[in-house]
Amino acid sequence: MSLVVIGTVAFDAIETPFGKTDKIVGGAATYAGLAASYFFDKVKIVGVVGDDFQSEDIQVFKDHGIDVEGLQIKEGEKSFFWAGKYHNDMNSRDTLATELNVLADFDPIIPDSYQDCQYLLLGNLTPQIQQTTIKRLTNRPKLVVLDTMNFWMDVAMDDLLETLKLVDVLTINDAEARQLSGEYSLVKAAKKILQMGPKYLIIKKGEHGALLFNEDKIFSAPALPLAEVFDPTGAGDTFAGGFIGYLAKVGTINFNNMKNAIIYGSALASFCVEKFGTERIKNLTEEEIAGRIKEFVNLSSFVIEQ
Amino acid sequence: MSLVVIGTVAFDAIETPFGKTDKIVGGAATYAGLAASYFFDKVKIVGVVGDDFQSEDIQVFKDHGIDVEGLQIKEGEKSFFWAGKYHNDMNSRDTLATELNVLADFDPIIPDSYQDCQYLLLGNLTPQIQQTTIKRLTNRPKLVVLDTMNFWMDVAMDDLLETLKLVDVLTINDAEARQLSGEYSLVKAAKKILQMGPKYLIIKKGEHGALLFNEDKIFSAPALPLAEVFDPTGAGDTFAGGFIGYLAKVGTINFNNMKNAIIYGSALASFCVEKFGTERIKNLTEEEIAGRIKEFVNLSSFVIEQ
Repeated sequence: MSLVVIGTVAFDAIETPFGKTDKIVGGAATYAGLAASYFFDKVKIVGVVGDDFQSEDIQVFKDHGIDVEGLQIKEGEKSFFWAGKYHNDMNSRDTLATELNVLADFDPIIPDSYQDCQYLLLGNLTPQIQQTTIKRLTNRPKLVVLDTMNFWMDVAMDDLLETLKLVDVLTINDAEARQLSGEYSLVKAAKKILQMGPKYLIIKKGEHGALLFNEDKIFSAPALPLAEVFDPTGAGDTFAGGFIGYLAKVGTINFNNMKNAIIYGSALASFCVEKFGTERIKNLTEEEIAGRIKEFVNLSSFVIEQ
Repeated sequence: MSLVVIGTVAFDAIETPFGKTDKIVGGAATYAGLAASYFFDKVKIVGVVGDDFQSEDIQVFKDHGIDVEGLQIKEGEKSFFWAGKYHNDMNSRDTLATELNVLADFDPIIPDSYQDCQYLLLGNLTPQIQQTTIKRLTNRPKLVVLDTMNFWMDVAMDDLLETLKLVDVLTINDAEARQLSGEYSLVKAAKKILQMGPKYLIIKKGEHGALLFNEDKIFSAPALPLAEVFDPTGAGDTFAGGFIGYLAKVGTINFNNMKNAIIYGSALASFCVEKFGTERIKNLTEEEIAGRIKEFVNLSSFVIEQ
């Protein structure tokens, strides 16, 4: 039984008010895979890189016990590259460069050893590739989580709607929920989106936390108020990876476990933004994670006797 | 022992995407007084109206057991009037008219019978009047809560800073916290503001809930996700009134009671926005409030065994 993550594995060049990086390893599958690995020991990734991806870049996955058999390395080609610059408020950014490279004709290969997949995280990619991935798994996983973004709503809405029919959980941000549903109220938006396929909808609100919708139930998760957000890159992917990793660990899918999974995902994401790229989430200890979870509990708990 | 609320008592004309009203009774003291009255039976208001304010308008206060001895009625003058129109997102509005009228030279009179004030809510008004009110109380109340807005930061920052030194709790929204502190991060903003006088800071984030800061402690309160916000007018005042009303009821000021007070204030505010003006919060039952509190508990509770 394994947890498969498909998504980009990439080089990023990031500039924030706190500094800038050269090309560092990034990508949705990287962040999500690392985050999931803290909770579950059979994480496997599917992705594609060029031969500019060094063996030490791949070593990071191996150090976390992540299976990379599904990570294709294209000789003579270059890895996907993204460069971006965050504004002072850290809530908006400019994309300075997007070089698709190997991603342009990415055809995901699911190794036979991945066919034991029970938890599937479809990281942000074209809906078409996300759909293909589901179909290439012989058995439908127990839980399929899809992450996407406004870009795919702009250019591939039909594909996205088709793919949504096949998943259990959708994670998007509040603006994307409004775009996907055409509703401003998130309650109304959720109601519509839950009729598109997913049984669970997670609306990520960045510094304002996240909302989980399922049938008529709603859970509001806090975000940890941070003095400084150093680099928001990968926070959403890290959230998704921590979320599904925790669910794979507990093994039972229900609303209460989903709530806790959101707290764990949020905790991992709160580490992610403390340093550039994957720097912080590469080296977490169990004690650090437990301490952060305790902060979330203290942050939001109250007792009202009625 | 009483709870005194000072603030505007006014006529409002409101337009939202759902409809519009003629002149209806509004004002910070009106909303806050009504909200507080659900928790505490000795609520007294200080304010000023013109002779256009009818006896049936005042009856609403009396029906809620609110003492109006401190509500001055100026013969031959008109009440403060505000007209506004909300945009489709309900988060922004245009002010169509502001007629100060009696408010222009408002000098608050504190009746002798109000000198037993233990809980003082300084509703949104000029910082000068807020300060005068504190000084006209013979004994410093046990708890002084101040609500203000960006307008006073623009035109009377020095007065506001002087007044802040005299209060225990400040309630403002996130944009105002940033303006007051000059810090974008709310954690950093709170740290600065807590050095300006208040021991507790509540940052209201509308649909994203509220944050409570005290020393190094933070509490994140959820907002109830609503399918429709009918009219946001008075929600902040209602929050403040419910907040201080609950604290007056429990009688002990500490972080845990403040947390619960925020939940009660948020619950009252969630009713306020369901109808125009004070329509909804004029007629709440204990059962409705208890039910709403239960919704807040369900919305945000999770149990993680560590």
